[in-house]
Amino acid sequence: MYIKGTGMTTFNYHERPSHLLAYDAILQALNNSSMKIKEIDAIVISNLDFEFNGERQRHFGSLLSSLLKTNVPIIRVPAACSGGGAAAWTALKLKKKFDNVLAVATDKITSMPSPIVTQDFMTGGERLFEQPEGLNFPSQNALVAQQHMLEYGTTEDDFALISYKNHKNGCLNPKAKFYKKDVSLETIKKSPVVASPLRLFDCSISVDGAAAVVLTNDKTDVKVIGHSLMTDYISPIERESLTEWPAMKLAASEAFSQAGIGPGDIDIAEIHDAFTIVELLSYEDLGFCKKGEGKNMIRDGIVEIDGKLPVNTSGGLKAKGHPISPTGIAQIIEVCEQLRNESGDRQVSSPKYGLAQNIGGAGGTITVHIMKKVGG
Amino acid sequence: MYIKGTGMTTFNYHERPSHLLAYDAILQALNNSSMKIKEIDAIVISNLDFEFNGERQRHFGSLLSSLLKTNVPIIRVPAACSGGGAAAWTALKLKKKFDNVLAVATDKITSMPSPIVTQDFMTGGERLFEQPEGLNFPSQNALVAQQHMLEYGTTEDDFALISYKNHKNGCLNPKAKFYKKDVSLETIKKSPVVASPLRLFDCSISVDGAAAVVLTNDKTDVKVIGHSLMTDYISPIERESLTEWPAMKLAASEAFSQAGIGPGDIDIAEIHDAFTIVELLSYEDLGFCKKGEGKNMIRDGIVEIDGKLPVNTSGGLKAKGHPISPTGIAQIIEVCEQLRNESGDRQVSSPKYGLAQNIGGAGGTITVHIMKKVGG
Repeated sequence: MYIKGTGMTTFNYHERPSHLLAYDAILQALNNSSMKIKEIDAIVISNLDFEFNGERQRHFGSLLSSLLKTNVPIIRVPAACSGGGAAAWTALKLKKKFDNVLAVATDKITSMPSPIVTQDFMTGGERLFEQPEGLNFPSQNALVAQQHMLEYGTTEDDFALISYKNHKNGCLNPKAKFYKKDVSLETIKKSPVVASPLRLFDCSISVDGAAAVVLTNDKTDVKVIGHSLMTDYISPIERESLTEWPAMKLAASEAFSQAGIGPGDIDIAEIHDAFTIVELLSYEDLGFCKKGEGKNMIRDGIVEIDGKLPVNTSGGLKAKGHPISPTGIAQIIEVCEQLRNESGDRQVSSPKYGLAQNIGGAGGTITVHIMKKVGG
Repeated sequence: MYIKGTGMTTFNYHERPSHLLAYDAILQALNNSSMKIKEIDAIVISNLDFEFNGERQRHFGSLLSSLLKTNVPIIRVPAACSGGGAAAWTALKLKKKFDNVLAVATDKITSMPSPIVTQDFMTGGERLFEQPEGLNFPSQNALVAQQHMLEYGTTEDDFALISYKNHKNGCLNPKAKFYKKDVSLETIKKSPVVASPLRLFDCSISVDGAAAVVLTNDKTDVKVIGHSLMTDYISPIERESLTEWPAMKLAASEAFSQAGIGPGDIDIAEIHDAFTIVELLSYEDLGFCKKGEGKNMIRDGIVEIDGKLPVNTSGGLKAKGHPISPTGIAQIIEVCEQLRNESGDRQVSSPKYGLAQNIGGAGGTITVHIMKKVGG
């Protein structure tokens, strides 16, 4: 299972409707793969079918058939914020039966007014009990952050440092929302509180975008050596612990087992920093450090772009932007480009193994993909 | 690839929300399989995420994890009216990697006021150009029916006979909306015109429901010997012909090729009669008769319950009811139960091969599953 080619739009405000953003990313990925659409045997699309941007289009697979003039199997795999990861995972499973499978994700958010977006995002959480109480994603993750601080001595400064790191990286990524936009540590620390202890700059930013990747049986220079998807209770407060996410541990364990390597072998990682606490918690539950020591990963500079394990060189959801479904595929693309030494100003020195981790809800669906640089 | 067990709710009005309907169908299917949830390795869910019934719950996979207390991979595969078929198809593909996969579909429609339902259904069609012109599913299929009548001499009476047949069958199905409700040919022929030539009784009826099936590598008495999913342009008027649906021909060809049998070998079929014209057209494009001869299948009684090829012994979408996503799985269940001689009053005499065909939109996504009775 190899990655043949990748394509993505900028993560930003876009005029074009979401199906045309998908089209743009697909054409880029085909071009990057030196392939024609007729060579693609199956397609997996993930999108969130937003109502209030005027697009809601339930039959997206058939719509892609129209756009691409193909009759191959196309299925749609939405999974809240882990839609992209779920699409890639499903495409990799389908590849047992098909030679060349395209995974694509698209979403258009910025045309919706902000209260509507909040309301629409909340449908990714528990609808009948938690939403009426206002337990949306910032407040869920704030509870996780408070508990982590209490149990392990993590501080607001640790969260700010993660945000600062991701903004420094995003500044170097031409596809990122915050490309060439410096954000100071002071700006981050003084930003308004959204849900204590999380401030505005602890939260990822909503953008429009699309991302696509072609998976193939042909040998290329980037091999997918592990892929996993695990689920957990939709509400973090249903779980035994707020600060340990079982689906992440299970997904990491499965992917590392498939890959035949361990967390210590990973040279670069893209982690789902929807909120800074989630990146910090993920250092721990993915196995990059012991439980409670996530704070040291950022304090000691390990996850900086010049550290031992650079995390979110793309800028992450924080500074690259988070268009929901496309995020999981964009993470895979960043790892792939890093392994190919194509990351320009933010290139890490000769990484061999990379990991992409995508999360839906507050740990309700988690995917992990592990990639390896093959040959030269 | 075998069917281990099946479960479904009645197709009718239900008080329970859609995720609990799914839960009911899953428990039935597990019970029918003599399995516990811990033995299920992966789940594929299809539902349509309706807004206006107050449920909209985007992260349905994680919600199922909560309900079932499992952390296995759960993905969601909505595909307009072909969601159930798409879930079964995807589950069968996943079975290459997992031993026991559960496919489930659920939708709750009846709690929405009727103009809202129409508007919501239209999001399964082309949204930006056709919907503003009022080209919803009844009118799209009316155009197909008009053209078929013009080209092949099909009549409104043929459509009425198909409706009458399906109501006679549904009358015998305890899970059907029209169970024990006689509908006369006169009632059908005199029902109000919805979109000429289609009358009310040419159209399927919206219900709530859920259906689930456990697929396994263990040998059982029903084997899935062919499964296909193909796509086509979302708008039938984009295609070369209104009356031939390429995705259906491709899906039939692929499934029969996998099965190593032909249309003449099929003893029983469930066909997606969202509108009577679709059932008639499907006789042709699935290969049960030549193009233009669909009318003879009903005129000559071939598709009656005591004919050579009984079609929609369940009552079909017309009389069993059409809860959207669950339809494709309910079709597979009907075929499975017929092959197992478990269909009570509507049991066909010892069928060996059965086919289930599920359609999304006006031919935009089409799945075909072929099943074989194994042993005694």
